[in-house]
Amino acid sequence: MPQFSLSNDEYEARRARILTRLEAKGATALITFGANNVSYFSRFAFIPTERPIAHLLTADRSILLVPNLEIEHAWAEGLVDDVVVYPEYPGLRPPLEYLKDRIVELGLGAGTIGVDADGYGQVYGYRGPRVSDLLPGATVVNVLDEIEYLQMINSEEELRLIRESARWGNLAHAYLQEYSQVGVSEIAISQRASNDASEAMIRTLGPDFRPRAFGGTVATATFRGQVGKASALPHAMSNNAKLQPGDVLGTYGGSSVWGYGSELERTMIVGEPSVEQARFFGHMLAAQTLAIEAIRPGLRCADIDRLVRDYYEEHDLMPYWRHHTGHAKSTLIHEAPFLDIGDEREIEVGMVFTVEPGLYVPDFAGFRHSDTVAVTPDGVEWITYYPRDLERLIIPV
Amino acid sequence: MPQFSLSNDEYEARRARILTRLEAKGATALITFGANNVSYFSRFAFIPTERPIAHLLTADRSILLVPNLEIEHAWAEGLVDDVVVYPEYPGLRPPLEYLKDRIVELGLGAGTIGVDADGYGQVYGYRGPRVSDLLPGATVVNVLDEIEYLQMINSEEELRLIRESARWGNLAHAYLQEYSQVGVSEIAISQRASNDASEAMIRTLGPDFRPRAFGGTVATATFRGQVGKASALPHAMSNNAKLQPGDVLGTYGGSSVWGYGSELERTMIVGEPSVEQARFFGHMLAAQTLAIEAIRPGLRCADIDRLVRDYYEEHDLMPYWRHHTGHAKSTLIHEAPFLDIGDEREIEVGMVFTVEPGLYVPDFAGFRHSDTVAVTPDGVEWITYYPRDLERLIIPV
Repeated sequence: MPQFSLSNDEYEARRARILTRLEAKGATALITFGANNVSYFSRFAFIPTERPIAHLLTADRSILLVPNLEIEHAWAEGLVDDVVVYPEYPGLRPPLEYLKDRIVELGLGAGTIGVDADGYGQVYGYRGPRVSDLLPGATVVNVLDEIEYLQMINSEEELRLIRESARWGNLAHAYLQEYSQVGVSEIAISQRASNDASEAMIRTLGPDFRPRAFGGTVATATFRGQVGKASALPHAMSNNAKLQPGDVLGTYGGSSVWGYGSELERTMIVGEPSVEQARFFGHMLAAQTLAIEAIRPGLRCADIDRLVRDYYEEHDLMPYWRHHTGHAKSTLIHEAPFLDIGDEREIEVGMVFTVEPGLYVPDFAGFRHSDTVAVTPDGVEWITYYPRDLERLIIPV
Repeated sequence: MPQFSLSNDEYEARRARILTRLEAKGATALITFGANNVSYFSRFAFIPTERPIAHLLTADRSILLVPNLEIEHAWAEGLVDDVVVYPEYPGLRPPLEYLKDRIVELGLGAGTIGVDADGYGQVYGYRGPRVSDLLPGATVVNVLDEIEYLQMINSEEELRLIRESARWGNLAHAYLQEYSQVGVSEIAISQRASNDASEAMIRTLGPDFRPRAFGGTVATATFRGQVGKASALPHAMSNNAKLQPGDVLGTYGGSSVWGYGSELERTMIVGEPSVEQARFFGHMLAAQTLAIEAIRPGLRCADIDRLVRDYYEEHDLMPYWRHHTGHAKSTLIHEAPFLDIGDEREIEVGMVFTVEPGLYVPDFAGFRHSDTVAVTPDGVEWITYYPRDLERLIIPV
């Protein structure tokens, strides 16, 4: 088993699984357009732009469609039998027509084809035909649900990457806490922490390590704007605020290992917490503990969220409720299923969730920890392991 | 005019322009779902997730649809008359139904409605109804082309932000060059340069500065994996390579100011360039100069790309051609229109382009500069200003 990447066997196993599911729908081919889905089946990780990249999978072929600028990259990084190249987008002919040609050549033009979307999305100014328009003789079936279901269940190799990611998110967060000082900008603290953690990470993991993340940052810790009163905004954006005594801080730490991530978030307080701060912190921690301890296979995602909401209602906290309990997590920022009263999907072994119920008091402060846990036969494995208690999350002033 | 943000007048002017265009199509309302489009008309910048955020614009109303977790954030940052809130996604009722209710209340349910997409995209596990299904009595017209056309033409306020972005991309790149040393990892160099430039940037621009970028990084410089032979991959990803004598390096520098960016890319060489390296560098530089000097209002985007391709053909360089000459640039990574033989759109004053013809020699090296220029009545204004000549791009060994 490779240390910091996925084996070719892993990709083969995914393909076998999706092909079985396609077969049940009478489909003999799969086309994926979403960057995450293309990588999932082809091994090719890339920067998505207005130039479509797609993956065609059949029982005996794995073929990438790429623009000319990705040809060597696709051959080097993809696990493929062939690469279909179009010159450029917009170019003189729609890129997807090159894919259509190959599909027709392979005799698949009149069959049933599974897709994650009926064409490439209208991103960065892209416009182009739908698969169903290009192949009027084919039956095009959306199988995004089936793909996402496979992605929800993490293999041992995937769990290993997620655990590795958590180590370096943990280090970045430790630096973030250490560098947090009154009068210093959230951006400066975040940059320095991310920098130092990434430097340690690349040295520790060595020359074979591939973050497979866009840009140079591999380990990151940030406040993302959740400083002081702005911590009450669950999805604030960076505000260049300087830390002040009494501030409640919302944090994030993570890293990318072969594209896999993890999520670690903490509520920290600058100086001695007030009684109100400590009270909300305590409720948040209790709700998170309740949720994590309840997770086990066979329950519904909704069950976990209902527990948290019951706790909030019991303690008159619903005015401070802003979002559900958590979401699945592997290679994207958020993934399905959701720990949400509206998600009746069953919790299964191998799913990885963030658990992050929050409390947000407008014009005062927000309180949220996020831990990443993997579902085991008996309950959960904690993937993140940063201290959660208030005492160890106080920034001395 | 604000220094580092856009004025409310700017948003009002955009709205007036799109409403005039909508009127010509008989539409009295606009719904946008794309994060970039929502921000463009509402002023609300946010982290896009599986929770839909949309903006409804009419002649006398600006209304945001947001999940409960964004309610205070939307009121604080959006230029809005009202905020429609849904509890959560998935939740117990599809988020877009809350928007439908408001549209029906406003008496717009049987009218013509412009949209940038017929519903929210299937991102991060989101599923939901289309606008046309929710409002069967309405005529839904896709006006993404019209929105993108407005976005192509930058106002003086927008140009000011793009220029500001270029200053800090320039600094980040200067640090990147300075810190580039044999034996050091591309990731470490990139992090240190980004860190130091961001620290200078936040101190210089002061407490009112808002990057409006996700995460903590505001100024960035990176190699993005284009180190040594991998520089021949135009869109390589970070590889944790250590610089070696003889390496050709592909770089990127940029920053985010109120969400506006710029693009600066350079080809640098570690140690004395070989004859072959210098020859390809020279051709790349000549082609870029040719393209930039040719840009002026009234020409077609295709004309510029054709000039570059003619140059390549004349010098037998087409085997090393991998992509078109450039793309528009303001708030996204890439934007339309494209300097591409397939793009017949007219070049207009206020458009901002990257100009970046490249040459890529497999298993040897890649050569590309990217400069950002704004179209003026007479030609172009150079937004980026980093040295372009080989001599000043050599890393001493």
